[in-house]
Amino acid sequence: MVKLNDNIIKMNNDNSFLKVKEKVNLYKLNNPNANIISLGVGDVSLPIVRPVIEAMHMAVDDLSSINTFKGYDTSFGYDFLKEKILSNDYPRMNFTNDEIYISCGTKTDITSILELFDINSKICLASVMYPVYQSGALSLNRNVTLLEVDEANHFIPNIPKEKYDIIYICSPNNPTGVCYSYAELEKWVKYAIDNQAVILYDNVYNAFVSSKNIPKSIYEIDGAKKVAIEFRSFSKAASFTGVRCSYYIIPNEISNNINRIWKKRLNNRFNGADYIAQVGAVATYSDNAKEAIKENIKYYKENIKLLYDFFSIHGYKVYGGTDAPFLWVKIKDEMTSWQLFDFLLKEFNIVVIPGIVFGMDGDKYFRVSGLASREVIIEAIKRMSESI
Amino acid sequence: MVKLNDNIIKMNNDNSFLKVKEKVNLYKLNNPNANIISLGVGDVSLPIVRPVIEAMHMAVDDLSSINTFKGYDTSFGYDFLKEKILSNDYPRMNFTNDEIYISCGTKTDITSILELFDINSKICLASVMYPVYQSGALSLNRNVTLLEVDEANHFIPNIPKEKYDIIYICSPNNPTGVCYSYAELEKWVKYAIDNQAVILYDNVYNAFVSSKNIPKSIYEIDGAKKVAIEFRSFSKAASFTGVRCSYYIIPNEISNNINRIWKKRLNNRFNGADYIAQVGAVATYSDNAKEAIKENIKYYKENIKLLYDFFSIHGYKVYGGTDAPFLWVKIKDEMTSWQLFDFLLKEFNIVVIPGIVFGMDGDKYFRVSGLASREVIIEAIKRMSESI
Repeated sequence: MVKLNDNIIKMNNDNSFLKVKEKVNLYKLNNPNANIISLGVGDVSLPIVRPVIEAMHMAVDDLSSINTFKGYDTSFGYDFLKEKILSNDYPRMNFTNDEIYISCGTKTDITSILELFDINSKICLASVMYPVYQSGALSLNRNVTLLEVDEANHFIPNIPKEKYDIIYICSPNNPTGVCYSYAELEKWVKYAIDNQAVILYDNVYNAFVSSKNIPKSIYEIDGAKKVAIEFRSFSKAASFTGVRCSYYIIPNEISNNINRIWKKRLNNRFNGADYIAQVGAVATYSDNAKEAIKENIKYYKENIKLLYDFFSIHGYKVYGGTDAPFLWVKIKDEMTSWQLFDFLLKEFNIVVIPGIVFGMDGDKYFRVSGLASREVIIEAIKRMSESI
Repeated sequence: MVKLNDNIIKMNNDNSFLKVKEKVNLYKLNNPNANIISLGVGDVSLPIVRPVIEAMHMAVDDLSSINTFKGYDTSFGYDFLKEKILSNDYPRMNFTNDEIYISCGTKTDITSILELFDINSKICLASVMYPVYQSGALSLNRNVTLLEVDEANHFIPNIPKEKYDIIYICSPNNPTGVCYSYAELEKWVKYAIDNQAVILYDNVYNAFVSSKNIPKSIYEIDGAKKVAIEFRSFSKAASFTGVRCSYYIIPNEISNNINRIWKKRLNNRFNGADYIAQVGAVATYSDNAKEAIKENIKYYKENIKLLYDFFSIHGYKVYGGTDAPFLWVKIKDEMTSWQLFDFLLKEFNIVVIPGIVFGMDGDKYFRVSGLASREVIIEAIKRMSESI
């Protein structure tokens, strides 16, 4: 048999979302009558808003007639969508259509982008992080260094003394719900400029940002256009988790030829995002859709506020939630995060994500999501109120 | 500035689809009144058939209600689609849902699959080939060896004496339109078994196969389940070039743990294909849709027959066309394929793909496609008839 990729073989599933799923399935099998509810999901619960649905119907009809049929897009996305994104999400930032890419999901983009850089680039990321960064890098034969985070640094790594070439930053953060403030991001942009590094800025939860001291985009920071690639998605705000449409910006200022080189790669690897998804994404910027999406975000933020208050009142130390759909809750007792997971599943039939899924440094925490429906949030609180 | 990936920087665009596009655009700029038509496109011209359109409308509606909303799929595709594919396209082959993956396009899949294998695997492919294989491998820091093809071996490489780990085979072939017969594929499957190699079998044009001696799937060959990964797509037959839905099969027989390992990779890199596309793909298997799609294929095959006859009558040596949407036409005069391209563009305002785009060994040929509309085909023949 041909030799398989050792870096993937070595990946350990013992602390993973997959393991969570396996444990839940096993519990279901053994307790077929259990009414399990999940505060674990990163998926949204609200449907796609009406104006976007209508636009997608029109796009489907376009595909039914020889005169309006759309086949292969470029590998970079339709200009009609790029222009909507740039004028709405990046006003006065002067990006051109050549600097933005439409894609099928940030989970794929955030790792694939590593192919743009030398295979020996030194990569760093926080020791509590969305595990895809580390596993993705490994599957592409890249190694990463973890920068320690804990309560002392509020889960934001201290600026390292060593030189790294590539820095993953996720803000609003998954899993901690913590956001990088203007001041914190300024320090990282300065570090990147000083070290000729690039920041891969995962900003898929930006719709949840409302605090004044939190930037909506890294490009609000002076100099960021020289060093940062920002990733966003229609998944969370526009409920596109099943539709698949994301985008990212590679500023020309990073390097003269960076976009020419990336386009060479994309021409050979990608045939563009779905036409229906792109038409739907455009419609998210109509006034009616914006209003409806704002209501959806408000709903999720109310959910997370209910959970925040519940855990706080019961004496838990809670991070995040203010500008993110996630809470990062510190475990009170002498339990590991898997023990806490097992306890909540068994006692209340409630699923949360054990912190160790996000790194060993997360083992004293668990992640709770406000993206479930209001009914699930209220039911979870009701169940836990009885005896937590 | 951080160091970029040298393997992408070094890629030469001088002989590429991109260069074709640039040349056509330049010609348009200099000749704004020219009525340019293209026999170059790999894209389809017929719209999506009615039963599939109707299914996609229903899928859009599913996304509009909280009760039917679909968010993240698994990274591997919906079982409802997997089952349709296996029962229709692979009857009696006993594949399980664990061995098939739904994805967003073979262009992406056919290179990404390399991550499953050791980075030092020895890769070989024909010296006239879909250029994505070679460029994709390079962007993933893999090197490839070209196996010479020409008229003598009918553009199918001779079985090599050296040991390779990974073999790309495209049949029906892009660009030559040539197909591997049962006898030829049997030799390659034997080679792969003897050398513990894997065949990556690009079978996206399978809908065009009608000759008795050409297998519709590599798995019709005894032993192929031990060595072959087959890739297919809804793009060409079902006009999904703008919708994005593909699939591939990794047989468990290749190695005990191969699917477990690949699923680990996908869990970290991919959030699944679009729900609307997957529902549409299921509908392509309804009786009405099958009938309509058969008509579309017939239409393209009539197109390619018209072109085949035209070039043959005019004394050209022509390959392909019988079981593929492409013709591979030998240039009669002492012209390179770019010279021929320039000539056809200037004289007749017709675009073809110069053979050198598919490798240096293709420089005495050009690729012609039957996927354009009948009107374009007839108009092209009319123009060329006047003086070719």
